[in-house]
Amino acid sequence: MGKLKVAVVGYGNIGKYAVEAVKAAPDMELAGIVRRQADAIMGIDVPVVDDISKLPKVDVALLCTPTRSVENYALQCLKLGICTVDSYDIHETIYELKMTLDAAAKEGGAASIISAGWDPGTDSVVRAVMLASAPFGLTHTDFGPGMSMGHTVAAKAIAGVKNALSMTMPMGYGVHRRDVYIEIENGADFEKVRRDLMADPYFATSDTHVYKVDDVNVLIDKGHGVHMVRKGGAGKTQNQIFEWKMTIDNPALTSQIMVACARAAKKQVPGAYTMLEFPLIDLLPGGREELIRSLV
Amino acid sequence: MGKLKVAVVGYGNIGKYAVEAVKAAPDMELAGIVRRQADAIMGIDVPVVDDISKLPKVDVALLCTPTRSVENYALQCLKLGICTVDSYDIHETIYELKMTLDAAAKEGGAASIISAGWDPGTDSVVRAVMLASAPFGLTHTDFGPGMSMGHTVAAKAIAGVKNALSMTMPMGYGVHRRDVYIEIENGADFEKVRRDLMADPYFATSDTHVYKVDDVNVLIDKGHGVHMVRKGGAGKTQNQIFEWKMTIDNPALTSQIMVACARAAKKQVPGAYTMLEFPLIDLLPGGREELIRSLV
Repeated sequence: MGKLKVAVVGYGNIGKYAVEAVKAAPDMELAGIVRRQADAIMGIDVPVVDDISKLPKVDVALLCTPTRSVENYALQCLKLGICTVDSYDIHETIYELKMTLDAAAKEGGAASIISAGWDPGTDSVVRAVMLASAPFGLTHTDFGPGMSMGHTVAAKAIAGVKNALSMTMPMGYGVHRRDVYIEIENGADFEKVRRDLMADPYFATSDTHVYKVDDVNVLIDKGHGVHMVRKGGAGKTQNQIFEWKMTIDNPALTSQIMVACARAAKKQVPGAYTMLEFPLIDLLPGGREELIRSLV
Repeated sequence: MGKLKVAVVGYGNIGKYAVEAVKAAPDMELAGIVRRQADAIMGIDVPVVDDISKLPKVDVALLCTPTRSVENYALQCLKLGICTVDSYDIHETIYELKMTLDAAAKEGGAASIISAGWDPGTDSVVRAVMLASAPFGLTHTDFGPGMSMGHTVAAKAIAGVKNALSMTMPMGYGVHRRDVYIEIENGADFEKVRRDLMADPYFATSDTHVYKVDDVNVLIDKGHGVHMVRKGGAGKTQNQIFEWKMTIDNPALTSQIMVACARAAKKQVPGAYTMLEFPLIDLLPGGREELIRSLV
C-alpha cells in the first residue's frame, strides 16, 4: 500500500506544525499546502497552491483554517471525494457541523473527522472512558495555565488596547481565573480600559485580573494544560477516582491529533465522525496484530 | 427498543459486582445467573442455572469466570448466537483468543468483546490515545498499591504457607516492589518459607519483601490503582506529557467496564473485538446526539 497523501489547508499556527507532523509520520507524504497566497514557502519542497483542486492527488485534507471557515473548506473537499479532518472547537455547534458534513461526505464518497484536537478531541475520548467506568458522579475539567485565543481576541477588541494576552488559570474543579495582560495605546487611560474589559461578557462572570505591561509579546508561550477528574460510582461501589492530566504545546498537539485522525479518516466508510465514533486503533500506523499485542 | 437482556456467568468476586452493575444500568435487565451450583442465591430474584442454554432469552453473556475458562464459555455462547464480554487478562495470548473467538462469533452471528477490564481494557484505550498524541517517546505504567492475584496464588503454593497476600507496590516509572504477607502453617520454618518464596520465578526478579503475620485476612482490601505517564514528541515538538491515574475498587471497576461493553457488543457486526476496535460511544447509554453534545 502506498503512503497516504495528505494536504495541509491553511498555513498559520496549526498548519505549520501539521506540516512537521505529516513529515514525521512513517506512512504519510505531504501532498501540498493550500493557502490564500500561493507563494513558495522557504524550506518547503511541496506544491503551494491557492485551491486544493490544483493539487494532483490528495487522500486527506487537514483543515488548519480558522474554526469558522472549516465548514466551507470541508464541503469543497468532500465534494471532490477528499477526506477531511478539522479541529472545529465551537462545542455548542459540533453536532450541527457533523450533520452538515455527514450528508456531504456520503454524497462525495469520503469520510470527515471533525473536532479532532485535544478539547474537543482526546479529552472527549477520556470523558467517555470515565463515564463508562463510573456512570454515577461528577467530572470536572480544569484548563491551563495557557493562553485563551477567544478571550485574547475579546481583550484586543476593547478600545485603547494595543495588544493583549488572556491567560486561563485553573483554580480547581472547573473554576478558572482570567489573567489579562494589556499593552495600552498611546494616550489611552488604563483604568478605563480595565473597567471596559471587566464589563465585557467574556470576562464579566469570571474572576478577572488585569495587568498593565509594556510588551505583551515577551509573555506569550504556546504551552497549555488539562486536568480532568471524575469521582463516581461503578455499580453500587462509590469513590472510584479517575484523573487525566497533560501539559503540552497547544498547536503541536492539536496538529498531531489531526494527523492521527487523517489515518482514521481513510479507513471509515463515507460519513462524518467525532473521535468517539470510530475505533481508536485506526489512529495508529502499523498492523492490527502488532498494535493489539503491544497496547492491549 | 426493549432492555438488553444480560446474563452473568460465574458468581465469584467479579460476578457479584457484575450483577449490581447490570441492575444499576438503565437500559439493561438481568436475564439470569449461570454457575456450577444452580441453587437459588439469597436476595437474587432471577433464574440461577448451571447452563446458559437453560435461560429463556439472553442478548449478552458477561463471562465472570476464571480467565482460563473464558474461551470455552465464550465458544459455547457464541455458538448459541449470544454475544459475550470477558475480561481475559493474559496479555501474551489476547491476540490468539481474539482470532479463535472471531471465527466462532462470525459463525454464530454474534459479537464478542474480549479483555474488557481496566488493564487490559481502559488502560489500553488510554495507551492508544497517548501514542496517537505523541508518537515518539516512552510510556510507563505503575500499578497499585493493590493485591496481585497471580503473585498471591504463587505465594500460597509455597510449602509451609497457610495463607498469603502479595501486594504490588509502585516504585515509579514501571518498577514494582512485591510486599508479601505470610501466615505460616503450624511448625513451618518462616526463614525457609521466605527463602523458597524469594527463589520462586514469580518473585526472583523483583525487589521482594516478606513479612510474617498472624492473620492475612485482616490485611486484604480490593482497592487498586494505576498511574500511567507518557513523555514524548508530537511532530518535532518535544516534552509533551500525559498522565492517567486512578484509584478504584478492582472487581467493581472490572465488572462495570464489562457491563458498558455488553452495550457495545450488541451494536457490532459479528466478530471479536478488543476495546481499541469499536467506537467508544457504543459503551454508553442514551442517544447519539445527546452523547455528542455532552461529551465532545
